[in-house]
Amino acid sequence: MKNYRLVVQYDGTDYAGFQIQPLERTIQGELEKALATLASEKIRIAGAGRTDSGVHSEGQTISFRTEKLTVPVERLPYAFNSLLPKDIRVIESEIMPSDFHARYSALEKTYRYQIYESEFENVFYRRYAYWTRTALDWEAIKSCTKLFIGTKDYASFAASGSSVKTTVRTISKVEVHNEGFLKTISFTADGFLYNMVRNLVGTLVDVGLGRLSLQQVDAIMESRDRRLASATMAPQGLFFESVKYS
Amino acid sequence: MKNYRLVVQYDGTDYAGFQIQPLERTIQGELEKALATLASEKIRIAGAGRTDSGVHSEGQTISFRTEKLTVPVERLPYAFNSLLPKDIRVIESEIMPSDFHARYSALEKTYRYQIYESEFENVFYRRYAYWTRTALDWEAIKSCTKLFIGTKDYASFAASGSSVKTTVRTISKVEVHNEGFLKTISFTADGFLYNMVRNLVGTLVDVGLGRLSLQQVDAIMESRDRRLASATMAPQGLFFESVKYS
Repeated sequence: MKNYRLVVQYDGTDYAGFQIQPLERTIQGELEKALATLASEKIRIAGAGRTDSGVHSEGQTISFRTEKLTVPVERLPYAFNSLLPKDIRVIESEIMPSDFHARYSALEKTYRYQIYESEFENVFYRRYAYWTRTALDWEAIKSCTKLFIGTKDYASFAASGSSVKTTVRTISKVEVHNEGFLKTISFTADGFLYNMVRNLVGTLVDVGLGRLSLQQVDAIMESRDRRLASATMAPQGLFFESVKYS
Repeated sequence: MKNYRLVVQYDGTDYAGFQIQPLERTIQGELEKALATLASEKIRIAGAGRTDSGVHSEGQTISFRTEKLTVPVERLPYAFNSLLPKDIRVIESEIMPSDFHARYSALEKTYRYQIYESEFENVFYRRYAYWTRTALDWEAIKSCTKLFIGTKDYASFAASGSSVKTTVRTISKVEVHNEGFLKTISFTADGFLYNMVRNLVGTLVDVGLGRLSLQQVDAIMESRDRRLASATMAPQGLFFESVKYS
């Protein structure tokens, strides 16, 4: 069986997230539908990350196995894109060794959250960024991001009710960028708990608003109690940027 | 009567253009509907530019006269925005001298056209830029923009069939910017003929593709014949950036 890797971009606005669901329009559902047409068989795909409804992708990576594709691998993006809706695009394709898996083989993933400060909501960014009327203290936010570097227990930032073996994750990099109108915060880690990026950003925004001190954030991390951390940020500001494989 | 000036941003994707039309959803239609609610009377508004379907605005300016508004002028953006669809936002409001008119008082307008070069269509820019798979020669484009500076007859770049007194316009500035992923071409002039910016950009793109030389563009201008110039560019790349008043 050939083992394929594809990189997929999408605007998540009009989807109920990545993961396939019986009655909802999902990214995985659209990709599997296109793949079924190309391969003339139903094939399950695996995604590197299960993005939520409204969350976008610049570098989501999927893998699947089949012998049935007649399209040469380098033409696969064109074949997929001719079948996919305009807000989903396949931009890379490659045949991988048989042990490759989009999720399990991932060493690191990078997510980016976009924010803008403006008196009025911006018509062009309302689907792609979080709007705040109040200006944030970006120096305080930058200082706080240092608390999130390293191997730590992120239980306070995991969606309540999620069952995982461990809430310890290693964040290798947090970067804050000022791109003019847009401010971005990106996180690179070996993995993320459910809603973790949106919960971390919620806490950073509260720091930027002066509602939380660094000492309080430290205490929230120590507490391992989700109820103490800030609210989950809205999905539309979140971008799945890239995945690193060995 | 008080004479109001408002600056309006909009994402033109889902509208049949600025100008009011009986059976279509238009920007003017939405603004007049909100204004009728706020003023409890039907009031005609004037716009600085009549943008087409799919064309966007960062700085469209409108004016209208009424005595019926009870909302203080500085609160008008909030009042309008509470009634308008999310893809139209009023971002400035001011009371002007009685002789001010959004269109007739305009000294200069600036439009910007956005282009990106990419192997695949980009899911985030498909509504806001023109996509070309072929890389353009931006040095050639920059050289060609010099032909469009000054007071000239732009008959070759006016939509065929449009009736105007004169096809002479003064373009004071054409700027080409490389903003990384996006390339932009902006035009500042005392006025534009119908479809003029999209026709000028079509010709510049043909220069960038090596299909037209500068000599040929010069000859097209001299000809005053619309049929010789390039095709009109798609609307989604066009932004009404700003208007200058005295």
